[in-house]
Amino acid sequence: MRIIHDPVELQTLALSVRRTGKRIGLVPTMGFLHEGHLSLIDEAKKRSDFVIVSIFVNPVQFGPNEDLDKYPRDFEHDRALCEEHGADVIFAPAPDAMYAPDRSVWVEETKLSRGLCGALRPGHFRGVTTVVAKLFLLAQPDVAVFGQKDAQQALVIRRMVRDLNFPIEIVTAPLVRDTDGVALSSRNKYLSPADRERAKVLSRSLFAAQRGELDADGVRKAIAGTADKVDYVVWLDADTLEEPTENTREILVAVAAYFGTTRLIDNVLIQEKK
Amino acid sequence: MRIIHDPVELQTLALSVRRTGKRIGLVPTMGFLHEGHLSLIDEAKKRSDFVIVSIFVNPVQFGPNEDLDKYPRDFEHDRALCEEHGADVIFAPAPDAMYAPDRSVWVEETKLSRGLCGALRPGHFRGVTTVVAKLFLLAQPDVAVFGQKDAQQALVIRRMVRDLNFPIEIVTAPLVRDTDGVALSSRNKYLSPADRERAKVLSRSLFAAQRGELDADGVRKAIAGTADKVDYVVWLDADTLEEPTENTREILVAVAAYFGTTRLIDNVLIQEKK
Repeated sequence: MRIIHDPVELQTLALSVRRTGKRIGLVPTMGFLHEGHLSLIDEAKKRSDFVIVSIFVNPVQFGPNEDLDKYPRDFEHDRALCEEHGADVIFAPAPDAMYAPDRSVWVEETKLSRGLCGALRPGHFRGVTTVVAKLFLLAQPDVAVFGQKDAQQALVIRRMVRDLNFPIEIVTAPLVRDTDGVALSSRNKYLSPADRERAKVLSRSLFAAQRGELDADGVRKAIAGTADKVDYVVWLDADTLEEPTENTREILVAVAAYFGTTRLIDNVLIQEKK
Repeated sequence: MRIIHDPVELQTLALSVRRTGKRIGLVPTMGFLHEGHLSLIDEAKKRSDFVIVSIFVNPVQFGPNEDLDKYPRDFEHDRALCEEHGADVIFAPAPDAMYAPDRSVWVEETKLSRGLCGALRPGHFRGVTTVVAKLFLLAQPDVAVFGQKDAQQALVIRRMVRDLNFPIEIVTAPLVRDTDGVALSSRNKYLSPADRERAKVLSRSLFAAQRGELDADGVRKAIAGTADKVDYVVWLDADTLEEPTENTREILVAVAAYFGTTRLIDNVLIQEKK
């Protein structure tokens, strides 16, 4: 497994791998890898011949009061996991190598990115689409794998790929949970044991919604009664992120809430029966 | 020479051409080709093995009161010229094939695009960068050729390529003039013979600046005395589009002015002697 820090070196390698006819798979991450990320790497491995895992805590998708500086990092652990799961390259650039001081070009999605996390984290998705466009052009993947954990992000990336004509297949892999139901997240590390216990309310309420035992309001009440702050609880068309209509084939129930100072997100999909 | 209307068909072809190891050259145009465009095709031909000329009057770079509907078109003439100059493919998509009704992703340059034409044509450069990003991803060029006639556009595209890491060499080919000095433009077709005569003031003033006979103010006065309306006359650092500094290596003198209802642009470069 190669470790590459220089964007130009990665691009040169990727272009030469493509010329050999191999399919490239890309898994973009911010590192501090957990089983969720590893499931994405495994998925990429199945669907391509050459897997690139990017590890980059992307500064431009963090707001001024967010956790950029304290975002957890453990490169040696990440390296071991990538090796174990058969990645061919880790791409770990320095922020300065990705962004020139006079950078001035952004890729921006203007509809799907406006609600949910986009409403509460202004500029977040513009940072995500911009860095993912750059990673796509550097790593030249045929297929890129994202997690359903970040449901809105996956939709925004799919829209970017469609609207800008990236020749890339986007795969959204299922959300991975711990045995207690809590969605895996690098930010779970921040939780105290008591907060971790309370955080189970997210998955518990979402599962109840999936079983038809709670409606949107019920989920909202359950979470508001336990979390320290609720950013949103939404019940939307899973394709458009708008209010469900008669054409809706799947519902996304998505939540974002704080436990202590830690913001967690979670979601489930519910098939519409017609 | 193949004529392709379907974006997916072009991309499939381009990806397969790349796999053969051939270098692809792209010349993006809005059609109604003149000698200026043909010089770009010739340049692409020199620098690549497979030349794609796109002909697309891009609706999203026109303002609501601009000349989208009356922009001149002559596909049969364009086809003959492309054939004659050795293009391998004309890509001529319909607007609907390029833009989904619910499109929501833009590529935007936020510094170099703000002055000059960008200040007077809001949204223009966002439309340009978005369509050029799409054309780059569809045509998969190794090299793309733009004209110095649209000096600001060429700089904005270079910045996009740098900031998003497109693996594409951008070539800016010299501006081509008619024998009377007037810069070639598809919009010259709109000029009455009297307006055409008056329009010579642009190149005449710019040449005088180049010879050191007029300064910025002199150029401004000469043009304001003849044109029906002056959008701008600027004397800027040719790399940054900011006021020249001691580090400036080249000056861009650029003008935009109306003759009758026709808006023309022109520019010259002046080397700084130090």
